[in-house]
Amino acid sequence: MDLKELQDYLCQKIPQVKSMEVEVISISPDSLTVSAPLEPNINHRDSVFGGSASSVSILSAWAFLHQKLASEGISTTLVIQKNTMTYDAPITGRFSATARLIDGSDWNKFVAMLKRKGKSRINVASHLDYEGNNAGQFEGTFVAVGCNSLPL
Amino acid sequence: MDLKELQDYLCQKIPQVKSMEVEVISISPDSLTVSAPLEPNINHRDSVFGGSASSVSILSAWAFLHQKLASEGISTTLVIQKNTMTYDAPITGRFSATARLIDGSDWNKFVAMLKRKGKSRINVASHLDYEGNNAGQFEGTFVAVGCNSLPL
Repeated sequence: MDLKELQDYLCQKIPQVKSMEVEVISISPDSLTVSAPLEPNINHRDSVFGGSASSVSILSAWAFLHQKLASEGISTTLVIQKNTMTYDAPITGRFSATARLIDGSDWNKFVAMLKRKGKSRINVASHLDYEGNNAGQFEGTFVAVGCNSLPL
Repeated sequence: MDLKELQDYLCQKIPQVKSMEVEVISISPDSLTVSAPLEPNINHRDSVFGGSASSVSILSAWAFLHQKLASEGISTTLVIQKNTMTYDAPITGRFSATARLIDGSDWNKFVAMLKRKGKSRINVASHLDYEGNNAGQFEGTFVAVGCNSLPL
């Protein structure tokens, strides 16, 4: 799944991706980064609304898992179960969210369990960055239910 | 601060309130409820996107504190510091978020500290409801900085 394919999928399926003007800017096996501008996500203090910061983080984590599963030929229903979030600094311009597996999350075990039991959980982190500085930290647990093969 | 006044303020200051079509539906000294429809908040599974569920919860909690402080004649800068969120059931239609103080949060102490020190923290919960059933739970810590008098 390339950048454009993922971007088109997200824009088509999740209207908030368009309204927050979220762009997928990089994908690798280990991470996925999205970014969003200030204007559509601004609050009464001329900084990024906490709801947008949280939403963009959740999106980055979901998209990271979605493309990582797709790259292994797996189609599943992937939903967020719970998350924590800290808002560490005000964001007053374009910001990014980079999602990765949390240290200790075992991808192979997650996939093996999904294939065997049809249900599996995994923990993902996302780091908010504004102008090269930490602006927030997300950690979430996602559940995958069902396991179908995609054409690779 | 009445419903219309708060709704107008939120719509004017936070574009995401408009794009998620969030409406303030009730305000009392003890709680504040907002609601939002499925369509602008839908995901690839035809249920509410987790980012929207989180964002609407954060908004309800922020708006609850904002109007409660305003009703006491206090203007302050109120920002979210951290939160937890659980997504307990899929939401496939209009949903609401009702914010309240967390049991044990002492409003009078929060206000007294804000007046004395110019900075104070408080914990707020928000309950997501879909068709009369629990759909999610938010808990957040907000920081108020600065304390000015509003004309009452």
